[in-house]
Amino acid sequence: MAGTLTLMTETLFEFDAALADSQLDEGWTIGNAVNGGFSMARMAAGVRPIVDADGRHPDCVALSAYFLSAARPGSYTVEAELVRSGRTMSTGQVSLWQEEAGERVERIRALTTFGDLTALSEPMRRQSEPPSMPPPEECFGFADVPEGMSSFPPPPIMDRVDMRFDPATSTWAVGQPSRQGRMRAWVRFRDAREPDPLSLLFFLDAMPPAAFDLGLMGWAPTLELTGHVRAVPAAGWLQVEITTDNFSATLLEEDARIWDSTGRLVAQSRQLAAVRVPRS
Amino acid sequence: MAGTLTLMTETLFEFDAALADSQLDEGWTIGNAVNGGFSMARMAAGVRPIVDADGRHPDCVALSAYFLSAARPGSYTVEAELVRSGRTMSTGQVSLWQEEAGERVERIRALTTFGDLTALSEPMRRQSEPPSMPPPEECFGFADVPEGMSSFPPPPIMDRVDMRFDPATSTWAVGQPSRQGRMRAWVRFRDAREPDPLSLLFFLDAMPPAAFDLGLMGWAPTLELTGHVRAVPAAGWLQVEITTDNFSATLLEEDARIWDSTGRLVAQSRQLAAVRVPRS
Repeated sequence: MAGTLTLMTETLFEFDAALADSQLDEGWTIGNAVNGGFSMARMAAGVRPIVDADGRHPDCVALSAYFLSAARPGSYTVEAELVRSGRTMSTGQVSLWQEEAGERVERIRALTTFGDLTALSEPMRRQSEPPSMPPPEECFGFADVPEGMSSFPPPPIMDRVDMRFDPATSTWAVGQPSRQGRMRAWVRFRDAREPDPLSLLFFLDAMPPAAFDLGLMGWAPTLELTGHVRAVPAAGWLQVEITTDNFSATLLEEDARIWDSTGRLVAQSRQLAAVRVPRS
Repeated sequence: MAGTLTLMTETLFEFDAALADSQLDEGWTIGNAVNGGFSMARMAAGVRPIVDADGRHPDCVALSAYFLSAARPGSYTVEAELVRSGRTMSTGQVSLWQEEAGERVERIRALTTFGDLTALSEPMRRQSEPPSMPPPEECFGFADVPEGMSSFPPPPIMDRVDMRFDPATSTWAVGQPSRQGRMRAWVRFRDAREPDPLSLLFFLDAMPPAAFDLGLMGWAPTLELTGHVRAVPAAGWLQVEITTDNFSATLLEEDARIWDSTGRLVAQSRQLAAVRVPRS
């Protein structure tokens, strides 16, 4: 009960308040669906007490989420199971459920491994270097798109996340996709909450789909996303790059990489996503 | 019973015979452990009847395996569950168990999505081009390493797989790792079994670890591996490239990509693996 009282009297950052909420909040949606990255962070937070019962494995190191049906704003339950408790890592399974038309429906099922990222990230021996981009103040936010020019109405999530797109990879926002399948941005929470390993799971899937840069502006639902968190991020802006190289029929992969403000690679992911392709 | 009789009277290829065997065969091991790629293929074969009950979703499109403890040659059981049956894809869960010291021990747990790759792979819209390499007859097999020069005794799996390493990325085999974290090879089954989507799961994790090319010649156990199978492969040699870019403390990722004999990208994977790093 002491924990609950503390929770109620502190002012939480928006992300932490949303994670603690018994409802999936409309503020973290894209279209009608709750953002996949937010759902993954919520699931990791839900399984953590079970895989980290003794405090040795506090950080989600790997998480593979299979998206079964779109999560909607509203009430939900998280079910978590300890799969294996190990010396340096522990593995769990976690599902997110909602009620729909009187039935319990599983939205997402994930396997995940937790460990101590402080011990598992030093020394850094080799890494992918961060891409070269102009500083955040020379990049574009959604607010910078001239009125009537935007091909993409900003979703509610953009009220919570400050996202500054590299001009070299943001022509899709004004209807001129580069068709390179590449997008780069600086990202951070608007309310100054600093990044941590849990929020990296969110940021891995917070960008608009890479498919936008191929001229496919529709929803690109994720079928599967696996994220690896490789280090505790430093405070400040994160740099995110997403790319897609392999696109067949309606399926494409999207790779995301995140570097922290010191240029350290802190997380990466690959997802398999579906897109709707207009008949030509 | 008709099916069983057919099975007993046909001559099976080694890979298919091993998949049908009630024992994990020593011929598919690396060190003391059953190869992870073989185990993934076995698990996909085990879950298929459940996710593909009506024959609409015959192919494993995505599989995320969490390796909990090393699988050993000997008896095992596979437990499979249907998670969701959908219109274009179905998702299942599958575990591989063995007995150890009188206890049931879970070796690997996986989530997987199946679909119809013929429908999900055409048309091919964009892809990663295959690397440029000399033809198989100009590449090195394990048998080509001069006696006494090999830093890597060929594991039993190499009796089953014909693997021809690109000379440009095989100096690790004679104790001269390039430290690029990159390895390329042509691969095929020695008994002329042609590749199919199921065997691609095996080939995604059949190469020596990319860590060998960083000079780390020990076992590199996989913690998590997610594979995406993107197309039905054509007959003939497969071209495999593995790379690692991010290596901290004892953890590194290894990405694998496979192209078929027509140059089509047919599968890719990323794994998180652990290595033992000698103190310097």
